[in-house]
Amino acid sequence: MKIAIINGPNLNLLGTREPDVYGKSSFESYFAALSSKYSHIQLSYYQSNIEGGIIDYLHQLIKDGIDAILINAGAYTHTSIAIADAIAAIKIPTIEIHISNIMAREEFRKTSYISSKCVGSISGLGLESYELGIQYFILKAAE
Amino acid sequence: MKIAIINGPNLNLLGTREPDVYGKSSFESYFAALSSKYSHIQLSYYQSNIEGGIIDYLHQLIKDGIDAILINAGAYTHTSIAIADAIAAIKIPTIEIHISNIMAREEFRKTSYISSKCVGSISGLGLESYELGIQYFILKAAE
Amino acid sequence: MKIAIINGPNLNLLGTREPDVYGKSSFESYFAALSSKYSHIQLSYYQSNIEGGIIDYLHQLIKDGIDAILINAGAYTHTSIAIADAIAAIKIPTIEIHISNIMAREEFRKTSYISSKCVGSISGLGLESYELGIQYFILKAAE
Amino acid sequence: MKIAIINGPNLNLLGTREPDVYGKSSFESYFAALSSKYSHIQLSYYQSNIEGGIIDYLHQLIKDGIDAILINAGAYTHTSIAIADAIAAIKIPTIEIHISNIMAREEFRKTSYISSKCVGSISGLGLESYELGIQYFILKAAE
Amino acid sequence: MKIAIINGPNLNLLGTREPDVYGKSSFESYFAALSSKYSHIQLSYYQSNIEGGIIDYLHQLIKDGIDAILINAGAYTHTSIAIADAIAAIKIPTIEIHISNIMAREEFRKTSYISSKCVGSISGLGLESYELGIQYFILKAAE
Amino acid sequence: MKIAIINGPNLNLLGTREPDVYGKSSFESYFAALSSKYSHIQLSYYQSNIEGGIIDYLHQLIKDGIDAILINAGAYTHTSIAIADAIAAIKIPTIEIHISNIMAREEFRKTSYISSKCVGSISGLGLESYELGIQYFILKAAE
Amino acid sequence: MKIAIINGPNLNLLGTREPDVYGKSSFESYFAALSSKYSHIQLSYYQSNIEGGIIDYLHQLIKDGIDAILINAGAYTHTSIAIADAIAAIKIPTIEIHISNIMAREEFRKTSYISSKCVGSISGLGLESYELGIQYFILKAAE
Amino acid sequence: MKIAIINGPNLNLLGTREPDVYGKSSFESYFAALSSKYSHIQLSYYQSNIEGGIIDYLHQLIKDGIDAILINAGAYTHTSIAIADAIAAIKIPTIEIHISNIMAREEFRKTSYISSKCVGSISGLGLESYELGIQYFILKAAE
Amino acid sequence: MKIAIINGPNLNLLGTREPDVYGKSSFESYFAALSSKYSHIQLSYYQSNIEGGIIDYLHQLIKDGIDAILINAGAYTHTSIAIADAIAAIKIPTIEIHISNIMAREEFRKTSYISSKCVGSISGLGLESYELGIQYFILKAAE
Amino acid sequence: MKIAIINGPNLNLLGTREPDVYGKSSFESYFAALSSKYSHIQLSYYQSNIEGGIIDYLHQLIKDGIDAILINAGAYTHTSIAIADAIAAIKIPTIEIHISNIMAREEFRKTSYISSKCVGSISGLGLESYELGIQYFILKAAE
Amino acid sequence: MKIAIINGPNLNLLGTREPDVYGKSSFESYFAALSSKYSHIQLSYYQSNIEGGIIDYLHQLIKDGIDAILINAGAYTHTSIAIADAIAAIKIPTIEIHISNIMAREEFRKTSYISSKCVGSISGLGLESYELGIQYFILKAAE
Amino acid sequence: MKIAIINGPNLNLLGTREPDVYGKSSFESYFAALSSKYSHIQLSYYQSNIEGGIIDYLHQLIKDGIDAILINAGAYTHTSIAIADAIAAIKIPTIEIHISNIMAREEFRKTSYISSKCVGSISGLGLESYELGIQYFILKAAE
Repeated sequence: MKIAIINGPNLNLLGTREPDVYGKSSFESYFAALSSKYSHIQLSYYQSNIEGGIIDYLHQLIKDGIDAILINAGAYTHTSIAIADAIAAIKIPTIEIHISNIMAREEFRKTSYISSKCVGSISGLGLESYELGIQYFILKAAE
Repeated sequence: MKIAIINGPNLNLLGTREPDVYGKSSFESYFAALSSKYSHIQLSYYQSNIEGGIIDYLHQLIKDGIDAILINAGAYTHTSIAIADAIAAIKIPTIEIHISNIMAREEFRKTSYISSKCVGSISGLGLESYELGIQYFILKAAE
Repeated sequence: MKIAIINGPNLNLLGTREPDVYGKSSFESYFAALSSKYSHIQLSYYQSNIEGGIIDYLHQLIKDGIDAILINAGAYTHTSIAIADAIAAIKIPTIEIHISNIMAREEFRKTSYISSKCVGSISGLGLESYELGIQYFILKAAE
Repeated sequence: MKIAIINGPNLNLLGTREPDVYGKSSFESYFAALSSKYSHIQLSYYQSNIEGGIIDYLHQLIKDGIDAILINAGAYTHTSIAIADAIAAIKIPTIEIHISNIMAREEFRKTSYISSKCVGSISGLGLESYELGIQYFILKAAE
Repeated sequence: MKIAIINGPNLNLLGTREPDVYGKSSFESYFAALSSKYSHIQLSYYQSNIEGGIIDYLHQLIKDGIDAILINAGAYTHTSIAIADAIAAIKIPTIEIHISNIMAREEFRKTSYISSKCVGSISGLGLESYELGIQYFILKAAE
Repeated sequence: MKIAIINGPNLNLLGTREPDVYGKSSFESYFAALSSKYSHIQLSYYQSNIEGGIIDYLHQLIKDGIDAILINAGAYTHTSIAIADAIAAIKIPTIEIHISNIMAREEFRKTSYISSKCVGSISGLGLESYELGIQYFILKAAE
Repeated sequence: MKIAIINGPNLNLLGTREPDVYGKSSFESYFAALSSKYSHIQLSYYQSNIEGGIIDYLHQLIKDGIDAILINAGAYTHTSIAIADAIAAIKIPTIEIHISNIMAREEFRKTSYISSKCVGSISGLGLESYELGIQYFILKAAE
Repeated sequence: MKIAIINGPNLNLLGTREPDVYGKSSFESYFAALSSKYSHIQLSYYQSNIEGGIIDYLHQLIKDGIDAILINAGAYTHTSIAIADAIAAIKIPTIEIHISNIMAREEFRKTSYISSKCVGSISGLGLESYELGIQYFILKAAE
Repeated sequence: MKIAIINGPNLNLLGTREPDVYGKSSFESYFAALSSKYSHIQLSYYQSNIEGGIIDYLHQLIKDGIDAILINAGAYTHTSIAIADAIAAIKIPTIEIHISNIMAREEFRKTSYISSKCVGSISGLGLESYELGIQYFILKAAE
Repeated sequence: MKIAIINGPNLNLLGTREPDVYGKSSFESYFAALSSKYSHIQLSYYQSNIEGGIIDYLHQLIKDGIDAILINAGAYTHTSIAIADAIAAIKIPTIEIHISNIMAREEFRKTSYISSKCVGSISGLGLESYELGIQYFILKAAE
Repeated sequence: MKIAIINGPNLNLLGTREPDVYGKSSFESYFAALSSKYSHIQLSYYQSNIEGGIIDYLHQLIKDGIDAILINAGAYTHTSIAIADAIAAIKIPTIEIHISNIMAREEFRKTSYISSKCVGSISGLGLESYELGIQYFILKAAE
Repeated sequence: MKIAIINGPNLNLLGTREPDVYGKSSFESYFAALSSKYSHIQLSYYQSNIEGGIIDYLHQLIKDGIDAILINAGAYTHTSIAIADAIAAIKIPTIEIHISNIMAREEFRKTSYISSKCVGSISGLGLESYELGIQYFILKAAE
């Protein structure tokens, strides 16, 4: 099973900035741990601050034969119809991920264009949100 | 570790009604499987169609020494400030659970009074949503 | 044919309070008259001020083999997604009933969560609203 | 007793167009059946696609000595303050009729200028909506 | 003079939870002090977390010959049209009470269905809000 | 000087219906009095319940060489962009007239598509609203 | 007959500023001409840029035995509930006056707190708006 | 191939009024030129200022065996649900036409009830909008 | 203890105008009675129709060493951010007072800029609202 | 004549994904056919998923001496003020193109920042939308 | 060059109240420092808590031959159309000044009637906001 | 002191396009003049039309040891939560700059996601807006 993890704008700062909101470890080290723990799964990781870069990558995943996607689109969650359209177009099962509980923050973070195009969403559970997403796809595959 | 699972209105119908939305197994049988799989955890289960009954039960959990809560408040998610207040008052870590992807359904299901009082939420992942909630608390306890 | 009539909050006051809005006869006496007039139909009647009580009763109707429901959810019409969900779940043909013309009253009475889950609605026609509901099901059965 | 039935725009197409929403029989044949079934009542029927034509007709009904009106204003239900004013002005008891359940359709069909000027409304019950309206006036007359 | 005090959801937690918002004494001990201070008045007290339970109690007060009501409907203040209808129906002079200043809290606490059905409201003055309500009825009775 | 007076839907009922809102005299008798009082002006009068009829008439006024218009569009004031467009197209100075004070009635009567296409408006001053409109054009002509 | 004319903020600049919107003559010279033309009427004039000053003056008019008021509240038209309350309180027939057509200007000039407290309104007809207001009270007095 | 062109309110003024917005040639002369240029197509033309007249004509087109429609509903575009319903009912492929760019004008011209019932829309391209509509149907027929 | 009472616009008319809404006694006579009944407290009274006058007075109260304020800002309650800012700035405990039940009147009276800057509010209890405010500060001082 | 065609996000998937919405042929093959059919015109084509890439390209067109633009901004139509500003800045005549009828899809697709900066728009007519745009510029050049 | 500085309601409290929001120095001492630093410019200063007082002063500035204005209208920024009208009427270049960053405070402080009538605005830069305003006019005069 | 200036989309066109809104000089020449005038400060300049490019640059500034930022995000001001998040994350004092007065332009330019993350904002003062921003940081450094 091949799962792609995609992070949106500002998530490259993870671990160095605003640790009380986003946690203290960098995503790269977390991803390394995750990859070794789930070594029977092919995990890939991509981050971009550019909306269109994320769309390009989503399109690329079709050719890569990816089975599932975990996407934390960051602030683009609330403004990008284009990313939502890309998720709908490629038809790979996708889970929306958020590290912080976006429903408990500013009003404008309660709108998500992406939610309705995904299988489901996991938010507010810290970096564990990503791991739970992987576990979901494992459970599903075992059915 | 003691975890309480609470289901709100109409979730007692699970498995017999609207299987395409909510799945085919009853929650009781699912809960039994869950309890034997996670036998080292004390799981309890409560369902009520009465808003105030859920509030009474939430209050009771303080005395029971419960460590964590998984609540699927069903339709009360969108209308009950009173349950949200109860969750805020008892200060036990709580995860909001939804079997279906509430963001991909009717407009009025996009409002949640409960979300902002919880640690996070898991939605749209079928009955697995509950199991992932338990796994979150196990992961957290292991830190 | 078995038809259940359900009344929501404050409708137990019928006949004694606000007669200019809701009429002068109590619902019990009206129901008695209705039952004898339509003696070939099995009519049952339930009233509760508790939202969850109405949901419990709706669920019970599946086991009772009820063919049709007339529900006047009173003020819960405008606030209860949970009752609307229950109606959708049990899949028994249901008509929404209102004694007064709710569209001609306060602004907040113009929202109905229940309407879209019912076959149709009859409102503003006094206690006759209930009788017309029964007649509808008789007409339908004769087709 | 003299009852006038008024149909608004596009209802002349009934039976030939969109049968899944509006039914398969033409209104004329339905009206003929209705007239012979309720032969002790003087039923009249008027249809127009012109807003002002319906207003002219409503004014005419005062002179005709009509006792009651059933009006299905079609799309004008949602846009015509002028028809609503006409109903209020002539002071003949009127019931708002809809064949389909307008509350379960597009958002803009949930607004009715006409409702608050009528005795009540019957909607979503197919052509039976009209017959139930007649039965209401018979019940009322028998009181 | 007989005055009934009614408290809504979560107010049974008073004194043990969120003391910075709701104060440190339990309502029961406060009520005892109030009863002995105003011994010439018949004070009664009822609390419920169940919306319909409060409605049942309000209806019961007619039979009990209660002269006045102080109601702190808690979170139901903002969501319950049914309780507002009950207050309107029983026609006993009622004052809306709030311990905290609801206007200085979340946006959704600024809507009150109950206000317009009451004589007036007293909010934000801590437990003294109840005592001032009693004093109002004493002043009125002395006119 | 030639001035055209145009009345919209339901204003043909003036004097016979809702006299407390619109006054007791018919518009025809009022127009006769007005014509004899202002005999040095060519007054013409048109009433229609049909939106498009009013538009046709407005277009006709260009050919008739009319100098000024007084239009009371009745309920079309609030719903007709088409009449507003017609007034803007023909470029004859027009005053919006209302017999009743539309700002003190229902919310939906506070919107006027027509106002911004007119020189100004006179409302709430009974039938005198029309006469004041004529006096305005006399004052202007005398400048 | 005694009629008071009241002008609100910035109307003291009339004739010297923004002549294309408000005309070229100062209000004082216009008022002088008006007073001599209608010498059988006692006209008085007051202007203030201070909201509370206008309210003080409105209260004073009761003692002065004024029969009618013409008020052009300028920008306070759209923001002052207090002036509207004063007009309602003193119960002297009042007409709302505007020199320019406020409906054809900015969106925020389309709201008027004052309109519903007045007999009617005359707007967009330049300084003639005031004269027409006087003529209305003459016509009314002559009935 | 038979194509019907329908123009709504005020479009009969084309060429004589507001040439900067709608162009200088009358629609009749434009239609003559169009008919001779596309002589292999049966073009028909209808204009009405009456909403219901347009609906009547749309119904008539079924009997006339028309293959395609170009409709410029003018101001009715923004207010007529009834015309939109008629287009939906007759099921003849229809293109919405606008001479001016309605998205660059007043706010209320940005809403179209008709758009969603049409195949597509062409707006802002002057009288050429109609010709392009014809070319579309030619292209489609040639596929 | 020194308590200042402040009344806003139109409250100087109390007792002479709109007695059914605001009561029959003038505030001056009520204040005299209040001062003699609570002679151990230094009560002062100020009324102004001028928004800025009330702000000036609020600032003055710091120098006067006032312990508490009762403010009935009248219509400025709903429009004055400046008065709300002044209350926040001077940091003297303040209670918002209303004689009538503002929640049961017009929609625009439901917004209060002042509420969230005050300790609490008492409304709808007639002139007794002021007395209860004084009693609150006595109760607080006695703690 | 030189015409540039610009496609926004996800339109590179044309022909391979969601063929029922966007058609079955890829845009590249369609563009080739178009170029050979209109060989007397210099057609160029650019696609990007990056908002700023489209802006860069629009700026470049000034230097390229392009006469006209057809832009299908895809999802950026509804969210990009920056692209709309770029179109306004370069002052090259531009037509907004959409393959699907955006007015018949989700609510958020009904807002277009780009429309008001363009000459006009063609939408819902499949790939023919582009060809009709070219024909418009040919018709215009021939005038 | 003559520059007038105007401060609105509550800004007279500067330096003594809420120092964390508005700074610790009084405006008078700051103004003295500013006047000596920019001694080649004629600076004048006016503060009022009264809306109409500010308007009176703005009108006076025409006669005083003032070249430029810096206005911090305080809370009137968000509620006063009358002050905005005065700025527009006197046609003296004006800059809107705010000490605190109003965009980072309450929702209702994000609306400014005054902004669009000014050359520009400087906000959130403490007392330096005023000095930068002066420097702007110096830079402009030097061009 | 090191200050970075960032310009967003379309600002590279400055001086060549829309000179009446944005001025006649190119930003590069203006920046050169600014650099020589403030030669004791290290000024750097970056422009991009790509949202994510601006975010990348903002992140880079941490490593560059920049002391202050002036950002004119152009149209991204109104749509980019991601840029606002980046400003908040890097914690370098930032001033929002606008050349034109955005409050006096289209409605959608009145919303700024960026404002509340900045120290303050300067808008509408032409290219001088940038220079004043630099002067602010000089004044602050001199305190």
